[in-house]
Amino acid sequence: MSQNSPVNPVQSTLPRPLSARSQIDSFIVMDVMSAAAAAEAAGQEVLHLEVGQPGTAAPSTALAALRDRMAQENLGYTVACGLPELRSRISQHYADHYSVIVPPERIVITSGSSAGFVLSFLAAFNPGDRLAVPSPGYPCYRQTPHALGLETVPLVTGPEDRWMPTPDMLRDAARNQGIAGALIASPANPTGTMMDPERLRDIIRVCEAERLWYLSDEIYHGLSYGVEEQTALAYSDSCVVINSFSKYFSMTGWRIGWMVVPAEMVSTVERLTQNLYIAASTASQVAALGAFDGRAELEANREVYQRNRDLLIDGLPRVGLDRIVPADGGFYLYVDVSAYTDDSLEFTRQMLDEVGVAATPGLDFDPDRGRGYVRFSYAGPTDVMQRALNRLGEWDRLTSPQT
Amino acid sequence: MSQNSPVNPVQSTLPRPLSARSQIDSFIVMDVMSAAAAAEAAGQEVLHLEVGQPGTAAPSTALAALRDRMAQENLGYTVACGLPELRSRISQHYADHYSVIVPPERIVITSGSSAGFVLSFLAAFNPGDRLAVPSPGYPCYRQTPHALGLETVPLVTGPEDRWMPTPDMLRDAARNQGIAGALIASPANPTGTMMDPERLRDIIRVCEAERLWYLSDEIYHGLSYGVEEQTALAYSDSCVVINSFSKYFSMTGWRIGWMVVPAEMVSTVERLTQNLYIAASTASQVAALGAFDGRAELEANREVYQRNRDLLIDGLPRVGLDRIVPADGGFYLYVDVSAYTDDSLEFTRQMLDEVGVAATPGLDFDPDRGRGYVRFSYAGPTDVMQRALNRLGEWDRLTSPQT
Repeated sequence: MSQNSPVNPVQSTLPRPLSARSQIDSFIVMDVMSAAAAAEAAGQEVLHLEVGQPGTAAPSTALAALRDRMAQENLGYTVACGLPELRSRISQHYADHYSVIVPPERIVITSGSSAGFVLSFLAAFNPGDRLAVPSPGYPCYRQTPHALGLETVPLVTGPEDRWMPTPDMLRDAARNQGIAGALIASPANPTGTMMDPERLRDIIRVCEAERLWYLSDEIYHGLSYGVEEQTALAYSDSCVVINSFSKYFSMTGWRIGWMVVPAEMVSTVERLTQNLYIAASTASQVAALGAFDGRAELEANREVYQRNRDLLIDGLPRVGLDRIVPADGGFYLYVDVSAYTDDSLEFTRQMLDEVGVAATPGLDFDPDRGRGYVRFSYAGPTDVMQRALNRLGEWDRLTSPQT
Repeated sequence: MSQNSPVNPVQSTLPRPLSARSQIDSFIVMDVMSAAAAAEAAGQEVLHLEVGQPGTAAPSTALAALRDRMAQENLGYTVACGLPELRSRISQHYADHYSVIVPPERIVITSGSSAGFVLSFLAAFNPGDRLAVPSPGYPCYRQTPHALGLETVPLVTGPEDRWMPTPDMLRDAARNQGIAGALIASPANPTGTMMDPERLRDIIRVCEAERLWYLSDEIYHGLSYGVEEQTALAYSDSCVVINSFSKYFSMTGWRIGWMVVPAEMVSTVERLTQNLYIAASTASQVAALGAFDGRAELEANREVYQRNRDLLIDGLPRVGLDRIVPADGGFYLYVDVSAYTDDSLEFTRQMLDEVGVAATPGLDFDPDRGRGYVRFSYAGPTDVMQRALNRLGEWDRLTSPQT
C-alpha cells in the first residue's frame, strides 16, 4: 500500500530533498503479492506462482548445525570474509561439482547475493561507468547500479537466442557503448534459460579481449535440467562470481551467499565488507555450513522442481500458453502472453481475481517488452502447479469465447 | 595477514583497475587482533580489551524463539521493512523506554546498523555531499561515506566538551563548510561519552534551522551509567535514527538492527532495501523479537559493564593512566597515553607483547590525534578487567623506571 505512495509535495518536513540516486522503482510483483494477500484475507484460495523462493525450509542438517552451535557459542562477529571452515567447504564444492580449483582465500562470505552485487559494483566500477545487463533480467540488476552511480546498458535478448546474450552483443557493447563490464546470470531470472559452457567461455574471452569486468551470477546453479552447468571460474581467474545459499540450498530468509573474486580484489572487498557489513550473520554462516550435509533433501527438492517444470512445459500449451522457451534451470518459465494482452500487470491482476493464480508481470524484468510476458515460478509443490493448470484451463481469457 | 598486502603492481590480471571509491582503509585494530591470535596460538594468555562486542551470547529468550520458529516455519524472506510484529515491538520499546510515540510504519528492520548507515547515506545524500562526523569517531563513519561518494567533515571534539560536538560546531560547519548533514553517536565510540538531552535537543534545533539531515546513532542506548538517555526522535520527526541489537541486546553476530526514518523517507528506504538487501535475515529477526523478553539477562550484562567501568575508572589512574574522561555509556574508555607514546599502534603492540593486554590504538578513530590515545573495551568479564589492571601495574612502560 504505502509502497507506491508518492512523497507529499505540499508540505515536506524533510530538511532537504531525498537524493536522486535513491529514487528507484519498486518491484511491481509487490503489487501482485499485496493483492494476493488481500484475496487470501478475504477467504479466496490463491495458488502462488509468483514467488521467487523455494517453498521448503533450509535442510534439516543446516538447522541442526545451528541448534548445536547456539548451545555452545556466543555467535559473535566472524572476520569480514567469513568463517574459515565455510570458505574451505565452498572451495571443496568447486572441486567436487565443477572440478575447478578455487582457493578459499578468494572466497568471501556475503549477506546473500545482494551483498555480492553491492560489493562487486563498488569494487570494480567508478561512478558513471556503464554496466551491461541482460534484458529481460532481474530488476535489481538495473536498480542497484542506479543507486550506486552506474549506468546500465541493456543486452536485449530474445527467444531466438534462448534469452541469452551472445559474444557479439558483448563485443558490440564494448566498442560502441563504452561498457566497463557485464553482469549475466545463467540459469537466468526470469527465463530459466542457460548458457552452455561454450557460450560462457566465448563470452568470457570477449570480456578479456575488451578489458571488461565479467560478473557471473550463478545463484541458480545446482538447479538445472539437462544443460551442463559450468562456473565462469573454469575459464577465468579475473571474473567475479556471485552465488548464494538461497535457491538450491533453500535458505532465502537466512541472507547468506558468497563471492569468488580475483586474488587482487580480495583485500579491497574485505575492507568494503568490514565497513559496509562487518560480516555476514554468524548464525546463517553456521547453518550454511550444515546445509552442505543436506544433499539428499536438496536433491529431493530439485526433483520436485524438475517434475513441476515438465508438468508446466507440457500443460501450459494445452491451456493456450504455448509461447515458451523451455527453461534449462532455476524454477521459472517466462511466457509470451502478447496474444492476450499488452498490459501484463493488468493481465496478472485479472488472473489473480478471476482464477486465483498469482504470477509476476514481465514488466519487472523488461520495462518495455515485458508488457507481453508473464513469469511463472514453479518453486512450489507439484499439486499447486497441477491445480494452477486446471484453473488456467478454465479461464475464459485464455480459452476461445464460449457461447 | 592478507589484510594489508598491497595489490600486486607488476602483473595484474584484472581487466581494469579497481575503483577509486573502493580504496578505503582497513581497521588498524585488525592488526592487533591478528597479533593477539598469534600470541594465543603460541601459548600466551591474552586479555582482550580490544573487542567491540559483548562477551555474552544473545539472551536465552532470543535463542528459544528461533529454535521454536525453526521447528514450525520455512523462514523464507520477510517483506523488505521486516516482520510486522518486530516493528510493532520496537515501537512499543520507544513508548516504554523513552515515552516517545513512533509508529511502526516508520521503523525499518536492517541487517545491523551497518545497513542503516548505507541506506541513510544513499537516501539522504547525493554524491559529493558533505557529511559532518565527530573526530574521534567510529572508523566506518569515514570509510563508508567515501565508498558511497560522500565527503566527510570532521567535528573535532576534545575532553573539554566530553568528546561531544557542540551546537556551535554544527552551525559553523553548516555555514562555512557546506555540510548537508551530520552523523553523531551518543553514547559514542570510542569515548563512551554522551550528550545530555539538552545538548541533543540544541544540536537538532541547529540542524533544523540550517536544513541539515540529522542522523542519530543510538546503537549504545541501553548501556548508560547515570546520564539520561534520550532518543533524537523526542525532538524531531525528520531525523534518522540508527540502532541495533548488537550491543545492549548482545547480538553482534546476528547482524540485526533497525532504523527510524521520517514518514516521507519510508518508501525510498523500502525500495533501496528491496534492491540492496531484499530484507534482513528472518532468523535474526525472529531472534531479535525474542530478545525483548530477555530483560533480566540483559540487565545483568549491563551491571557487569557498569562494574567493569567503575573498576577501570578507579584502577587505570593507579597504574599511570589518569587522563580519561569517564564514560557515560557503552563499554569503552578512551585513554590519553600521550605521556608515554606518540605512536599508539606501536604502544598497543608492546602492551600485547610485554603484558598480554590487547587494546585498540586510537588511530582507528582519529588518524591524527589518535597517535596519543588507546581505547579499552570493558565488554568482557570483570576478572579480565581486574587482571588487566594488575598486569598494566607491572608494565615498565607505565611505571617509573626501577633500578
